[in-house]
Formats: sequence, structure tokens, C-alpha cells
Amino acid sequence: MKKRIIVDIDGVLADIYGQFRKFESQDLGTTQELSEITGKLEEEAFINGENYMATEGFFRNASVIEGSIEVLKELNQVHDVFIVSAATKFPKSMAEKHEWLAEHFPFITWQQIVFCGTKEVIKGDIMIDDHFKNLDKFDGQTLLFSQPHNLKRTENGHTRVGNWKEISQLLL
Amino acid sequence: MKKRIIVDIDGVLADIYGQFRKFESQDLGTTQELSEITGKLEEEAFINGENYMATEGFFRNASVIEGSIEVLKELNQVHDVFIVSAATKFPKSMAEKHEWLAEHFPFITWQQIVFCGTKEVIKGDIMIDDHFKNLDKFDGQTLLFSQPHNLKRTENGHTRVGNWKEISQLLL
Repeated sequence: MKKRIIVDIDGVLADIYGQFRKFESQDLGTTQELSEITGKLEEEAFINGENYMATEGFFRNASVIEGSIEVLKELNQVHDVFIVSAATKFPKSMAEKHEWLAEHFPFITWQQIVFCGTKEVIKGDIMIDDHFKNLDKFDGQTLLFSQPHNLKRTENGHTRVGNWKEISQLLL
Repeated sequence: MKKRIIVDIDGVLADIYGQFRKFESQDLGTTQELSEITGKLEEEAFINGENYMATEGFFRNASVIEGSIEVLKELNQVHDVFIVSAATKFPKSMAEKHEWLAEHFPFITWQQIVFCGTKEVIKGDIMIDDHFKNLDKFDGQTLLFSQPHNLKRTENGHTRVGNWKEISQLLL
């Protein structure tokens, strides 16, 4: 049966930790080891993180998370995929994320994109996200995409996935 | 009881017909009477409407619909208000609409704003919108805000409101 799948951008399609660490290196001249920031929220791990996210190019130049293009393309052929990204806090990020999606995920149309502040207004069957604040308020099936900030926490009823191959195995 | 109210921008908060007619006048040197376009969809009424909407300033410079600021401010104090606008078709409109909201509705925070392509992914208790395509797919109570394009149609189960005073009487 066709399902509506709600897919996050940051930390699920886009390698936001890669960007945080690149900006941290440019800003402070040093980069923390991944082991040092594992289990910390992003805002705790990167003290100037809010400034980085407000900087032009932060979202536009993010790397694509491995396997996401191929699996999302397949999901998009059999399900109703919506890309839902928290973006209104950094208004300039919306145009950047739009361009980024057009470049890397050209099969996603404008009808399938949502930019919001909070995801509690979104309804669907399955949500793939790396943040508990989004998954906890969702009515349907929830996949927790592993990222350093959520690695030390128990899953709280969500199904943890470590990469896009695991998503493919679950949903395709 | 606190309800989640989903409020449209174009044709509900922003006077989009005023913008269409201003652009039409500049483009064609003439403006149709409102009686001529009543009952026509916007794309039928304004043959170059898509170009107007893609033009810089179209959304940024729209007038505010009478009474909307005062009533929305009150609604915002007693209910959970979300501003949900179809905007991803015209990516540049998102920054314009964001600025427009900040200017005219400064009490609306970034957490309360959603830009999407289709509103079928949005859940809430009450939706105020001028388009059947949005109201028809909504699960909760639906208020049809009168605009020329919907004036000749029956309400299809929605409650028609002609202005913000009527919304105030219904919801406050």
C-alpha cells in the first residue's frame, strides 16, 4: 500500500555534522573528535553552531548522506514522499535548501517540499528524522536516523536506522 | 479549549487580487472589472498571473486584508495559530512572505510558519483558506474565505466567511 513518508533534510539527507565540523575548524582552528561530541545535542557540541547555520552557504554546500539519493529515488516511485525541513528559524536557508534539493534530488518536485518551524503540524504514515522532538509528536511509524546527538539515547519507541541501506530494507 | 488554527496567507491575510490587478494594469494597460473575473479561477482571470507571481515584489508588497491583523492577534492569544502558505512553487516568494509577515504580523514567530507545496500534509483543528483544494483535504473545521474565484461556487460543506469580522464572531 502506498504510504506517505515524511523525510527530514538535516542529518538524514544532508551531512550537517560535516558542515558543523568544517565551520568549527575554520572558526576555531580545531575540530573535536566525533567521540567527544557523541551524545551531546548539536547546540552543546558546537558552541557557535547557531552562527554557522545563519551563515550563507552552510546548508547549500552540505554533502549528501551516503545512499540517500538512490534509496529516496526508489521510495519516491512506490510511496508518497514529502521532504519536511525545519527552516523558518533561518529564513535564508529555505532558498539554499530548495537549490540543494534541486541539485541532488531533482526527482523531488516543489509539491513535495515543506519548510516549517515545528513538525507537529505534519501528518503522514512514516517519519524519518534524527530528532526526538520531531518523532515524539508524530502519529505514525517513526524511524530514528542515527546521528551523534542521538546515539547515547534509548529509542523511546522509535525504530533506529543507522544508514539508508537499513531504511531500504525496512521500507522497500 | 485551545485549538490549532491553520491560516492561509494569499487571499486571506494578503490581498492577492489587489496585486494581480496592479500587475495586470502595468502589464496590459487595462484592468478587468471585478464582476468580469468573479467565478473564474485566478489562472483563468489573469492570463499572465503565473509571471506576476514569479516577479520580485509581488508577495512582498501585497496589502493586508482588512481586519486580519487585529483578529489574528486576538486568535493568537487564545489558540495555537499556524500560518501555512503554498510557496515552494515560487521559491523566492518564501523570503518575501517571511519578511511580509514580520512587518505586518510581528507577533507570529518562526515556529508558527509553514511554507509548502500542497497542504494535504497539514493537520490541525480549523483551517481558514480561500481554496477548495486546501479545505477539501483537511480533516477539521473549514472556513472558506470569500474571494472572487470562489464566490459563485457552493460551499461544499465549508463555512463561508466574507471578512475577518465574521471569523472573529465565529472563533473568538
